[in-house]
Amino acid sequence: MAEAKQLSGAGLRGQVAGKTALSTVGKSGSGLTYRGYDVKDLANNCIFEEVAYLILKGELPTQAELSDYQTKLKAMRGLPQALKEVLERIPATAHPMDVIRTGCSVLGNLETEESFDQQQDMTDRMLAAFPSIINYWYRFSHDGVRIETETDDDTIGAHFLHLLHGKKPSALHEQVMNVSLILYAEHEFNASTFTARVCASTLSDIHSCVTAAIGSLRGPLHGGANEAAMELIEGMQNPDHAEETLLGMLSRKEKIMGFGHAIYSVSDPRNDIIKVWSEKLAQENGNSSLYDISVRCEAVMWREKKLFCNADFFHASAYNYMGIPTKLFTPIFVCSRLTGWAAHVMEQRADNRIIRPSADYVGVEPRSVPAISAR
Amino acid sequence: MAEAKQLSGAGLRGQVAGKTALSTVGKSGSGLTYRGYDVKDLANNCIFEEVAYLILKGELPTQAELSDYQTKLKAMRGLPQALKEVLERIPATAHPMDVIRTGCSVLGNLETEESFDQQQDMTDRMLAAFPSIINYWYRFSHDGVRIETETDDDTIGAHFLHLLHGKKPSALHEQVMNVSLILYAEHEFNASTFTARVCASTLSDIHSCVTAAIGSLRGPLHGGANEAAMELIEGMQNPDHAEETLLGMLSRKEKIMGFGHAIYSVSDPRNDIIKVWSEKLAQENGNSSLYDISVRCEAVMWREKKLFCNADFFHASAYNYMGIPTKLFTPIFVCSRLTGWAAHVMEQRADNRIIRPSADYVGVEPRSVPAISAR
Repeated sequence: MAEAKQLSGAGLRGQVAGKTALSTVGKSGSGLTYRGYDVKDLANNCIFEEVAYLILKGELPTQAELSDYQTKLKAMRGLPQALKEVLERIPATAHPMDVIRTGCSVLGNLETEESFDQQQDMTDRMLAAFPSIINYWYRFSHDGVRIETETDDDTIGAHFLHLLHGKKPSALHEQVMNVSLILYAEHEFNASTFTARVCASTLSDIHSCVTAAIGSLRGPLHGGANEAAMELIEGMQNPDHAEETLLGMLSRKEKIMGFGHAIYSVSDPRNDIIKVWSEKLAQENGNSSLYDISVRCEAVMWREKKLFCNADFFHASAYNYMGIPTKLFTPIFVCSRLTGWAAHVMEQRADNRIIRPSADYVGVEPRSVPAISAR
Repeated sequence: MAEAKQLSGAGLRGQVAGKTALSTVGKSGSGLTYRGYDVKDLANNCIFEEVAYLILKGELPTQAELSDYQTKLKAMRGLPQALKEVLERIPATAHPMDVIRTGCSVLGNLETEESFDQQQDMTDRMLAAFPSIINYWYRFSHDGVRIETETDDDTIGAHFLHLLHGKKPSALHEQVMNVSLILYAEHEFNASTFTARVCASTLSDIHSCVTAAIGSLRGPLHGGANEAAMELIEGMQNPDHAEETLLGMLSRKEKIMGFGHAIYSVSDPRNDIIKVWSEKLAQENGNSSLYDISVRCEAVMWREKKLFCNADFFHASAYNYMGIPTKLFTPIFVCSRLTGWAAHVMEQRADNRIIRPSADYVGVEPRSVPAISAR
């Protein structure tokens, strides 16, 4: 075997592992584009379904195409009886990411992708069913109710809140969900997406790829920062207490989640967008405390460490204002990022070579097996 | 962002993506070592549990350590009631790799790894429970029986056959299972192992990592070659018909599974080993037809294409002689490779940086979102 090439950085950082036409991350230090469109432009002008259509099919839909797509997705919200029975056997104490990972895996048993011709339909089914899966489990395990998962809401975001709260959300809440799902939809070769691509490169089925990606997103270095941000700010009583808390944490060199980013160096373009909506929710709520605390945190972290808020930080207050339990934050990330994962699986399949790198061997030299009595 | 480095080969081929002390693959064109020991030496002198211990802990066990380890594993074969009820809801028509992927994911809900201190215990539990999971589902869905998964067999290989056939296997069959499980246990940065490492690099839990790896092994470019080899040879009536069939396939440029390898260039060191055992099983069985057919296939492929048998080819006849249904071949691969996956997860965790490569952008240039009426 030819001598393998040594990469300069651990974690393949800065190394090109493939091609994509789906997005650019930090190309000029701060931007994020999906299929050439700035994420801010999309978040200001589109619902999530338009962006999912864009990412998966390459172009924004016309009104007729969008209506058809929404109609298709609406019809796919019901869960097979066997899947519901599985979800009923997962305890309330389970990690919600384990639940959605399992729900996806079970769906792959019951509605298996037999041919890559089905990849778009399988993806649409998951987009429609994931909010049903997580909320069915949550409401059954926490509230003891078996909810009806088929609603007539026009958007996935409204569907999610409807199942969670048992009533249609306000127009504002539906809009914030659209923005949030758009912001999290796609992010190039992040670890979960790369996981999905490695899995796809063996020509495995799409449920395996998405199940694998969920497992990666579960890690605290990847998804979960919005949950960690929530745990941080909910312990703060007011902006002054927030400042005091952060300064103490900084002096003790504790890890503070929701700030900085592996790729972005100047700012996270998603932060400005969700921050505006968090403020609107604070105004609607009549209690701006959590928002005010978040603003102070942002100022302190910038002043002290030149660290900017990433997409996750103001998501915490925004989700909290909409009554979403903290443990469901990362599963919402899944409902959104599924779009990017699936699009990357499709892209990998279209021009595939199995992803099989080499390793630098640092183990012991060749040796002989001693008899067990001589060990 | 600094300009990302362009790699020469697609699929990260020949590129070092990290360090390992676990194994070498094809270092001199044909070798395979685990922790410095040649796989042939291990297969000739050890049971699978010794090799699992070696791979996971770094050294071969003493007799006392091995006995303790076997005792520990034996005590972990029972399945939680909730998991059994989940398996009962998966139809007989499901893909067995979907079943074992789901079983692993469900186990992660019920017995969650809360701290990395538990990684060895979690791995041992999976080593003990995976044969129970796949056979519980298989026997329930195909034979309508709820089997008792706790047996007193000394080895995982015997446990597997015992559950499948409802009786203790012969000494020969147990020995072949040991050899087979040893041969498949570890193989450096193959696609499923690399999937597990990418997942582990987010500091996710071990069930997420293994679930993800199973999803990758499911792909036809990775696991499943032994099943494909079985489908090939079971359609051949005798050696002459085998030769005729292969020549026809070669002339039609059809893909023939079980030959050649992405890394090995001269031979697959695992083939010589399993081939000997396949011959012994043929003699025991009193019908050497499948073995004779396999031998002819090997000769024809070498003569015509200079392609050698990989680990999978003679596994097909060996498993078939032991009465193992073809659809369970790849799940047995899982029961073995779990060892390598878990050891790589532990290794990644011990010196971690999140695996997050870059992509080469080949999409459209920046553009503005048109109003939906103007699309």
